[in-house]
Amino acid sequence: MGEGEEVRNKQVLFKGYISGFPKESDMCISTDNSICLKVPEGSNGVLVKNLYLSCDPYMRLLMQKIEGPSIFTSLTPGSVITGYGVAKVLDSGHLNFKKDDLVWGTTGWEEYSLITVTDSLFKIEHTDVPLSYYTGILGMPGMTAYVGFYETCNPKKGEYVFVSAASGAIGQLVGQFAKLMGCYVVGSAGSKEKVDLLKNKFGFHEAFNYKEEHDLDAALKRYCPEGIDIYFDNVGGKMLNAVILNMRSHGRIALCGQVSQYILDEPEGVKNVICLIYSRVRVEGFVVFDYLPQYSKFLDTILPSIREGKITYVEDIVEGLESAPAALVGLFSGRNVGKQLVVVARE
Amino acid sequence: MGEGEEVRNKQVLFKGYISGFPKESDMCISTDNSICLKVPEGSNGVLVKNLYLSCDPYMRLLMQKIEGPSIFTSLTPGSVITGYGVAKVLDSGHLNFKKDDLVWGTTGWEEYSLITVTDSLFKIEHTDVPLSYYTGILGMPGMTAYVGFYETCNPKKGEYVFVSAASGAIGQLVGQFAKLMGCYVVGSAGSKEKVDLLKNKFGFHEAFNYKEEHDLDAALKRYCPEGIDIYFDNVGGKMLNAVILNMRSHGRIALCGQVSQYILDEPEGVKNVICLIYSRVRVEGFVVFDYLPQYSKFLDTILPSIREGKITYVEDIVEGLESAPAALVGLFSGRNVGKQLVVVARE
Repeated sequence: MGEGEEVRNKQVLFKGYISGFPKESDMCISTDNSICLKVPEGSNGVLVKNLYLSCDPYMRLLMQKIEGPSIFTSLTPGSVITGYGVAKVLDSGHLNFKKDDLVWGTTGWEEYSLITVTDSLFKIEHTDVPLSYYTGILGMPGMTAYVGFYETCNPKKGEYVFVSAASGAIGQLVGQFAKLMGCYVVGSAGSKEKVDLLKNKFGFHEAFNYKEEHDLDAALKRYCPEGIDIYFDNVGGKMLNAVILNMRSHGRIALCGQVSQYILDEPEGVKNVICLIYSRVRVEGFVVFDYLPQYSKFLDTILPSIREGKITYVEDIVEGLESAPAALVGLFSGRNVGKQLVVVARE
Repeated sequence: MGEGEEVRNKQVLFKGYISGFPKESDMCISTDNSICLKVPEGSNGVLVKNLYLSCDPYMRLLMQKIEGPSIFTSLTPGSVITGYGVAKVLDSGHLNFKKDDLVWGTTGWEEYSLITVTDSLFKIEHTDVPLSYYTGILGMPGMTAYVGFYETCNPKKGEYVFVSAASGAIGQLVGQFAKLMGCYVVGSAGSKEKVDLLKNKFGFHEAFNYKEEHDLDAALKRYCPEGIDIYFDNVGGKMLNAVILNMRSHGRIALCGQVSQYILDEPEGVKNVICLIYSRVRVEGFVVFDYLPQYSKFLDTILPSIREGKITYVEDIVEGLESAPAALVGLFSGRNVGKQLVVVARE
């Protein structure tokens, strides 16, 4: 096709603010729009063809009207869903990017996007690993696991580490980082298949299906009989409340996400706060955006581990924009096994 | 009286496990017991005459059957109440203490105590300040304020500090430490009298009566319009939940106590945990016992400030063991103004 050609641009649109679980019907596929495959005159934006789109739990938060302090901005009803993705540059008005560059960062759930906010758009330099990895282990979830574990948790060899949502995009990495450091690692996940994955593929010492445990405190006492030095919290709510009862003295809890709470209009309260005093526990919320300047240092550390097979990564890949709404919705019922992503095009 | 004399020993006894608010009738005054004013042969204990007894909120926790992790051991029904106090040594089987030494540490609510656990019994070397101060500013509450603020909160000049139960034994000191450091300091307390004290005696920039605020979030937004960098939490519950909504980026919360929760069978849940992520807040529980080895360093720092009038301290003193149960109970209705203590004898 020629430069500046106007082409159809299939999109996934956000219909309107929701409460509770997201449903496929909260989004719709539209083929009504077209796009000019050239950056407008004078713009320093980047025109990309989207290849892989990332499904991440935080995206649910964007589907409600956000009130109070937040790091997120609500989606606009009727607009295209936004999220992380891997894309190929077709045209660029920005000095840092040129035609045929591969990039990852915030893009739209559509075939082609004009990206005008390029602050957190990263050029992909290493292509000897799967390109899709830049939605996961080499992208935002990978950075999140890395800084959350190494910077926030301050881990030491021999410590007892517990990870929730442990087979997910972030959890599977935290568990492997902890193992590499010589920690004892226990994970929770929501199915037998995932528990098997944790133990047999990612090398967790122990793992359990939280959906089969009526008493999470009792489950933790069974699987972490020595207690927990480090809890990497991806879920919040009841699990966080139970973990607090099982923290060892001077333990650390990294608050990464609260996927169990995003679907609730009123969050569950954490009742065991007083035990944070008794056990001298530090709880710290962190946001990966603060660490983006360290991205290239992160890559230098993790790429060799991937190439040498010291770290493995499991993805759950669906094909086509049409499959994207169901893939996103599936995060909240735990349908996905590993990092959920959508292939829009392979090149 | 001669050495080894057997004398009456008036005591405050704990009647039995309670739930909810403590009442005077949960304790009783007994004159049935006598004590020999000599340390038993072969014991390395210390026999003391109690002078000042400290009323502290944690004592409520000892009045229930403690389950789960705790730093405390329940009182035994029928036994004497235990707590911090200032006492004079009458006889000693311990090398570090001798007759006529003044000491502070854990003792009994009675006229005379045989103290057999002497690990955290401190000899009082400086008596140019009121002896009663060793139940407060120079004792456990003073150390708590000091390590909680300087070590846990990591304060910096110009930061915004909020303190709850701010006129209490610990809060009044935290506020003054923060002012000395050049912070902006806001406090909450439970009466107009206490609010006046905070502003006029302790130099808080702002203060409010939480009992007159139906919406604590709105009150905090009014009194701390710039948000809060440091929250020194003495109360837990609703206030903690509201403060979380008002924390500035990279703020710190020191969990010192939860006096609002001690009287509840089921603690209130903290619902705004997700905002700890958005605002990158660190929450840390701490226990003063961990810092007792630093006690003499603490004294070297705080004594000059007291002598130079840079730090002031308000006490609420009642006379006689008979007044002790009401004084302890009063902590939970906020009856006391300043550090609550009981004089048993003046020398």
